[in-house]
Amino acid sequence: MSQPEPDLAAIVRDVVADMHAREDRGTVATYIPELANVDPGYFGLAIVDVAGNVYAGGDCAVPFSIQSISKVFTLTLALGRIGDRLWRYVGREPSGNRFNSIVQLEHEAGVPRNPFINAGAIAVTDVILSGRQPRETLGEILRFVQFLADDATVSIDKDVADSEKRTGYRNSALANYMKSFGVIQNSVDYTLGVYFHHCAIAMTCEQLARAGLFLSCNGTNPLTGLSVVSAERARRINALMLTCGHYDGSGEFAYRVGLPGKSGVGGGILAIAPGKASIAVWSPGLDEAGNSHLGRIALEELTRRTGWSIFGGVS
Amino acid sequence: MSQPEPDLAAIVRDVVADMHAREDRGTVATYIPELANVDPGYFGLAIVDVAGNVYAGGDCAVPFSIQSISKVFTLTLALGRIGDRLWRYVGREPSGNRFNSIVQLEHEAGVPRNPFINAGAIAVTDVILSGRQPRETLGEILRFVQFLADDATVSIDKDVADSEKRTGYRNSALANYMKSFGVIQNSVDYTLGVYFHHCAIAMTCEQLARAGLFLSCNGTNPLTGLSVVSAERARRINALMLTCGHYDGSGEFAYRVGLPGKSGVGGGILAIAPGKASIAVWSPGLDEAGNSHLGRIALEELTRRTGWSIFGGVS
Amino acid sequence: MSQPEPDLAAIVRDVVADMHAREDRGTVATYIPELANVDPGYFGLAIVDVAGNVYAGGDCAVPFSIQSISKVFTLTLALGRIGDRLWRYVGREPSGNRFNSIVQLEHEAGVPRNPFINAGAIAVTDVILSGRQPRETLGEILRFVQFLADDATVSIDKDVADSEKRTGYRNSALANYMKSFGVIQNSVDYTLGVYFHHCAIAMTCEQLARAGLFLSCNGTNPLTGLSVVSAERARRINALMLTCGHYDGSGEFAYRVGLPGKSGVGGGILAIAPGKASIAVWSPGLDEAGNSHLGRIALEELTRRTGWSIFGGVS
Amino acid sequence: MSQPEPDLAAIVRDVVADMHAREDRGTVATYIPELANVDPGYFGLAIVDVAGNVYAGGDCAVPFSIQSISKVFTLTLALGRIGDRLWRYVGREPSGNRFNSIVQLEHEAGVPRNPFINAGAIAVTDVILSGRQPRETLGEILRFVQFLADDATVSIDKDVADSEKRTGYRNSALANYMKSFGVIQNSVDYTLGVYFHHCAIAMTCEQLARAGLFLSCNGTNPLTGLSVVSAERARRINALMLTCGHYDGSGEFAYRVGLPGKSGVGGGILAIAPGKASIAVWSPGLDEAGNSHLGRIALEELTRRTGWSIFGGVS
Repeated sequence: MSQPEPDLAAIVRDVVADMHAREDRGTVATYIPELANVDPGYFGLAIVDVAGNVYAGGDCAVPFSIQSISKVFTLTLALGRIGDRLWRYVGREPSGNRFNSIVQLEHEAGVPRNPFINAGAIAVTDVILSGRQPRETLGEILRFVQFLADDATVSIDKDVADSEKRTGYRNSALANYMKSFGVIQNSVDYTLGVYFHHCAIAMTCEQLARAGLFLSCNGTNPLTGLSVVSAERARRINALMLTCGHYDGSGEFAYRVGLPGKSGVGGGILAIAPGKASIAVWSPGLDEAGNSHLGRIALEELTRRTGWSIFGGVS
Repeated sequence: MSQPEPDLAAIVRDVVADMHAREDRGTVATYIPELANVDPGYFGLAIVDVAGNVYAGGDCAVPFSIQSISKVFTLTLALGRIGDRLWRYVGREPSGNRFNSIVQLEHEAGVPRNPFINAGAIAVTDVILSGRQPRETLGEILRFVQFLADDATVSIDKDVADSEKRTGYRNSALANYMKSFGVIQNSVDYTLGVYFHHCAIAMTCEQLARAGLFLSCNGTNPLTGLSVVSAERARRINALMLTCGHYDGSGEFAYRVGLPGKSGVGGGILAIAPGKASIAVWSPGLDEAGNSHLGRIALEELTRRTGWSIFGGVS
Repeated sequence: MSQPEPDLAAIVRDVVADMHAREDRGTVATYIPELANVDPGYFGLAIVDVAGNVYAGGDCAVPFSIQSISKVFTLTLALGRIGDRLWRYVGREPSGNRFNSIVQLEHEAGVPRNPFINAGAIAVTDVILSGRQPRETLGEILRFVQFLADDATVSIDKDVADSEKRTGYRNSALANYMKSFGVIQNSVDYTLGVYFHHCAIAMTCEQLARAGLFLSCNGTNPLTGLSVVSAERARRINALMLTCGHYDGSGEFAYRVGLPGKSGVGGGILAIAPGKASIAVWSPGLDEAGNSHLGRIALEELTRRTGWSIFGGVS
Repeated sequence: MSQPEPDLAAIVRDVVADMHAREDRGTVATYIPELANVDPGYFGLAIVDVAGNVYAGGDCAVPFSIQSISKVFTLTLALGRIGDRLWRYVGREPSGNRFNSIVQLEHEAGVPRNPFINAGAIAVTDVILSGRQPRETLGEILRFVQFLADDATVSIDKDVADSEKRTGYRNSALANYMKSFGVIQNSVDYTLGVYFHHCAIAMTCEQLARAGLFLSCNGTNPLTGLSVVSAERARRINALMLTCGHYDGSGEFAYRVGLPGKSGVGGGILAIAPGKASIAVWSPGLDEAGNSHLGRIALEELTRRTGWSIFGGVS
C-alpha cells in the first residue's frame, strides 16, 4: 500500500488561515505573570520533514516560552547521562492527574509518575544538576537545545524565569516534598533554579521543530548527520510523549491527533511524526487541561490531511 | 528509507522457543477460581499479517479466556451503536489506577476514565444492552466476535462466566456505584450478567489475531473485504489501546513494546501493528499490573526484531 | 464549684419557639424518595434527664425515620454479641470523608473507618446477622430498640425501607466492595436488607431520648434499673459518637454543641449529656454535611443555656 | 450522684512505677535528628488540679521538646488576635490522614482541615506572624507560654529548631503549597522559621500541665486568677483537641482515654480534664500514629482510676 505525498505547503497555509480566523482561542495562562501578557492572537506552525524541508507559516518566527516542552530535552539529556538508572527517580506511567498534582507523590513515596509532569521534570533536572553549579548545568542544557536546533541564538528569557521563580510556590512544594523522600539530591533552590530557567527557554516554531527532528529520525538529526540518541531510545522517548506528554489530556491528544507530542503552558506543542517530520505549533490560549487549545486543533487537522497518525494502517 | 521484510516464521519460532524455556512465568490470576487452575506452562503466539498470512506457534490453537480483551470488541460495537454519544458515559484518559479501582469514580461523578478499565467496560456493556434482554445482547456480542474472527466456533466458557458471577463483588460494587450516579441505565444484574459472559469468551491465539485484524487495516478486514469501522475510528480505537489498554502498566507497555495492545487477566494480549499485522499472544502468568508477564516480553522481542514499533522512524 | 440547675422546661419552650420561627430550615434529603416528602416545618425536641423527668415540645410526639441514628443501637448490639472482636471489621477513627464515601475502603483493604459511616454500619449489621435469617435478626434489633425505649410500639416504616432498598445503589456498592475484601460474611442482599430496615425504624423524639438514656447513665437505664452495657462501654460508645457521629461535620458538632451525638438523614439527632440527660431533636432539613440544620442549632442553644458541654470546666 | 475524690498522689505513684517497668516503649522519632538521641527510658507525669495542687512523678522535671503541643498555645493566641476570622485559613474537622499529609490540601484548595495537623498549625502561625518580624513574633509566643506556665524560665531549644529547619522539607512543601493557594500571607521562610521555633519550646511536665490549666477551668488560670480566654472559647479549644489532637489516632485516644489531648512527636501529651485538672505526660517512644506510646497508656490508666473521662456519667 502507498499513499500520495501530502502537499505540506498547502496544508500549512490552510491550517494557519483556519486558525487565525477562529474566535475561541482558549485562555492564556495566568499563573506566571510574564506569560499572562502574551497576545492570544498569535498562531505559528512549522514542519521540518526528514529531508530537511521546512514548511512554516503564521507567527512561526516569533520566539515564545517553550515551558514544559523543555522537558523532552532534559529527559534526553538525563538519559544520556545516567541511562536507565534515571528510572529510580521517576516512573513511566500516565498520572491520571493534573500537571502540578502532589497527591500521587504521597501515595508513592515521592517518586513522580513520569518525566513530563512537573514533579517528574524537577526530578530529571535534579539528576542533570548532580552536584554541579546551577549556572554550569543550565549552560549545558541551553547548549544542548542550541545543538539540537542547530541554532546558537536560542536563549533563555530571564524575565520569565524570574517571574516563575517568584511565584513558583507549587513547584517549590513538589520539590520540597520529593526532597523529604530523598528523591531530590541537590539543594531544592538549586534544582528549582535550573528548572525554572530551562522552562524559560524561548524558541520560534522553526527552531523547535528542528530541535525535535532527531525523534522523527531514529535518534539522528538528518540535517547534521549527528546521532543524538539510539533508535531505541528515540522510540521510547516518543512513547513517553504519547502516553504522558499532555498531562491528563494525553489520552485525548492521542485519540484526536495520534502523534507523540509535548505541550507547554506557553502555548507551544512539539509533535513527532516518526519517519515523516517534526512539527511545532504555537498558540498561547490553553484548554482546561493546560494544553494549547488551537495548537491541538491545528495538529488534528494536520494529521487528518497528512495521514501521519501513528495509529493508521497505511505507511 | 526502506527495510527488509522481517522473517516472521523465524521470529515466531525463536520467540516461542525462548518463552517456553523461561522459568519466571509470573503468577496465574487467582481471583476467578476457574482461571486459577490454568497451567502456567502454556505459551501461544499468532501473527496475521495484512495479506492474510498466518504465522503461529506454541499453544496457538488452545482456547483461553480472553477476559478484558473482549473490551476492544464491545467498545467497537458500542461506538457502532451510538457513536460519539458513548463518551457521555465513559472518558478517554488513562486512569493512573489499577484495573478495578473505584476511587476515581467518586471524584468524577461516576463516569469512568476509559473503556478499558473494568468500570468503563461495564458502562460500555450497559450501552450495548440498552433496554434489551441480556441473552439477546450477549448473542449479538458473540456473533460480532465470530464475524471478526471469521469463525463461528468461537464460544463462551459458561464455567468461567459463572465463576466470575459468583465472586465478582468488586465489579458489582463498580456497577452499583455508577448506577447511583445514573451512569448505568439497565438493571445492575443484567449489565453485569452480559459483562461477565463476554469476558468469558474463549479464543485461540489464531482466532484472536484474526479478530483484531481490522484494526491493523484502517477498519476493514482484508481477508473478507468487509468494512468494520471507518479508518478514523480504527485509529482512535488503537489510540485508546495504546494509552489505556494495560491499566497502570500502559505506559510501560508503550515504552517497551510500542504497539497498541489490550491485555486480559486470562494471560492474553492482542497487539496491533498498524499497516502490518495483528498479533495475539497468550501466557497465563501475570505481572504485578495484571498483564501477561511472558506475553509482554514476547511482544517486546517481536517488535525489536520486526521494527514494527509505531514510535520508530522507518516505515 | 457548682451551678444552679437549668430550668429545662423553659429552655425547651424557648428553643422550640425559636426554631419554629426560623426560615432557613436546610434541605430535606431527596435521595430516599419516601423521605423527600416530609414537611420541613416539623421541629421536635425531647429531653429525658437521669431522674427520668421528660421535657418535650414541638413535634416531639410525631414519629420520624431515625435512619443512621439506628447505628448507635446496632453498634451496642454488635459489641454485646462479639465484644472487641468487632474491631476486626471496622475501625474507630473519624473518616474525614462524606457518609457514603468509598475512597477510604480502597486504600484500607475494605475495612471501614468507624461504625457510623454507612460502610461501617453495614459491616456492623453483618456481624449481628452472623449467618441467621434477616427476619430473625431484624426482629432482634427492633426488640432491642423497643427495650431501650421501654416502648413496644416502636416499629419499622416498611415504605421507607422498601424505598431505600430500591434506590440504595451506593450502599450496595459499599457492601459489595467490602464483600470483595472478605469484610462482609453474609450474602450482600441479606446484610443490606437488614441494614435498610433498621435505618427505617420510626420513633418520636420522646421514644428516642428514652432509648439513649443508658448512654447518659453509665450504661444502665435509670428508669428500668436494667443494665444495658458496662460503664466503660457506654463511655466508649459516647466517645465514638463524639468523634464520628456527624460524618465530616463531627468536628463542627463537637466545636459548637460539645456533646456526643448521632445524626440521621431523616433529620433526627440523638445527643448524650453524660450524667445529665439524653436529648432527641428532629427537624427534617439538612445542612451540607447531611446533618439536621435546625437540630444542630437547637442543641447548640441548649448546651449554651444548660452548660452541659462535656468540654466545660464546671459540673 | 457523687464519687469519692481520687487519691491522685497514689495514682501518680502507681502509674509512674508501672510505666517505668514496661519494656515495649514505642519508637523514638527519627525524622528530627536532635530528637532521635533522646533516651526512650524517660517517663514523666504531672497533674495540676483546679485548686493548684501538683501531683508529679518520674522524670517530671526534665525539659523535653513539646513539639506539636505548642499548637494548642498558638491556636489560643491566633484566636485572641483575629477571633473567628481564623477559620478562613483553617478548618475544624478531623483529617482522617497522617499529621503531615498533603493530599487533603489539594482536594480542598489549600485550606488545612484543622489547626493541629502540621499544615493547619503552619497556617495558624502565619496568622500570628501577620506581617511582623519572625523574632518579634516568636518572642510573643514564648512570652505567652511563659505567662501560661507562670514560669519565665521556659525557653526554646535552638538546636532542635535548627535541626528541624535543616530537615523540614515536608513542612516546607506544605507551606509552599498553601502559599500557592494564597492561604499563607507571609514569606514561607518567615512563617516556617517561627513554626520550627515554637515547636522547639522545651518544657517539663510540671510546666506544661500548669500552662494547660486554663483549659480545665473555663479559660481562667485559677492560680493567678487571670482570664486567658472566655469559657466558651476554652470549651471549643478542648473540643478541637478531642477530635483532632492526635492526628489519625484521635478516635483511638478519645475511645481509650476520653479526654481532650494534644500530642507531640517529642513524646509529650497534654490532656485536659475539664473542671478537674490539667495533665502532662512524657515518654519519648511513639506509636504508629506518631503519638507517645506509654503516654497514652498512662493516661488511659489514669482516667480509669480517676473516673475523669468526659464521656462518663458521673460527675
